[in-house]
Amino acid sequence: MRIEAPPTERQREKPAGARRGLLIVHTGDGKGKSTAAFGLALRAHGRGRAVTIFQFMKVPSARFGEHRAFATLGVPIVGLGDGFSWKSRDLAHSAQLARDGWQRAAAAVASGAYFLVVLDELTYPLRYGWLPLADVLATLRARPRHTHVVVTGRGAPDELLELADTVTEFRKLKHHYDAGVPAQRGIED
Amino acid sequence: MRIEAPPTERQREKPAGARRGLLIVHTGDGKGKSTAAFGLALRAHGRGRAVTIFQFMKVPSARFGEHRAFATLGVPIVGLGDGFSWKSRDLAHSAQLARDGWQRAAAAVASGAYFLVVLDELTYPLRYGWLPLADVLATLRARPRHTHVVVTGRGAPDELLELADTVTEFRKLKHHYDAGVPAQRGIED
Repeated sequence: MRIEAPPTERQREKPAGARRGLLIVHTGDGKGKSTAAFGLALRAHGRGRAVTIFQFMKVPSARFGEHRAFATLGVPIVGLGDGFSWKSRDLAHSAQLARDGWQRAAAAVASGAYFLVVLDELTYPLRYGWLPLADVLATLRARPRHTHVVVTGRGAPDELLELADTVTEFRKLKHHYDAGVPAQRGIED
Repeated sequence: MRIEAPPTERQREKPAGARRGLLIVHTGDGKGKSTAAFGLALRAHGRGRAVTIFQFMKVPSARFGEHRAFATLGVPIVGLGDGFSWKSRDLAHSAQLARDGWQRAAAAVASGAYFLVVLDELTYPLRYGWLPLADVLATLRARPRHTHVVVTGRGAPDELLELADTVTEFRKLKHHYDAGVPAQRGIED
């Protein structure tokens, strides 16, 4: 009897090309895009690799579950935003924060000091026009060969998807919010 | 000027129903199903909640990056399988391990001792017919009200999707394997 194996087994059968730092994009309207990036950061850290996480829409003082756990592990997770929402009045300030934050994140990507750099929710400042897409693509394209980058967020631009090595679309098939169940501490934050 | 807010902001606007333990399913052929479950476990642990992880297709001795990091954090991650692949000869043994493992996992779900139980790659023993779906559904349905469960794996059965509160389909839009780039330590394991 032969039955279909789990995908990880089948992937091991593939012919090997050269190992190199990957550009991985998590996009789509489903849950888990950032959470999966945190899981990657956890795994790389577990392998003793240098990891850093930048969050473009979170405030520097955010202390969600992931911030607490990464603090325990010693993995930096840096909020670059101002907790922007659709009620924000000072969009010029939000845009400036995004540009300042991008300078920091781009320097980390270019430094070669990291095995993995997570750029969480980077797609939003791109969509809002706060960051020039060409600059972001140029920085990603020019990164050191050993540096992996994960970009998360809805509506990733086509040019970013083209540049990426691996793209997963997170599709919402069902969501508890739609059944009236609110966000829950420890699950959503 | 009003512009579209990040999804987390919009979700906060929704009317609140009752909080309760969720059944969350990560399925589809894309990368990140397990990794996102690990991210949820990280977050819940960061909030001081009791978490345990069962892996139906991994061996007990697995020491991937996630096992090392969760060991540091003190989160149990238990391999219940025998590293089954399509080359396995002793499927009866694999099936028996899955049934034994399910007893342990089901007891953890039913115990009420955990805020979150991850059942990683549970869909495979279900698909292979090693575990009766009705038993699994009954255990999930009867779980304590405060217990969240995450099930991962391709090809989740329809009945499981119906029972779930939240379902994300991970769709592969692009994968580096297809471009000949092999699995890389710290990213895939």
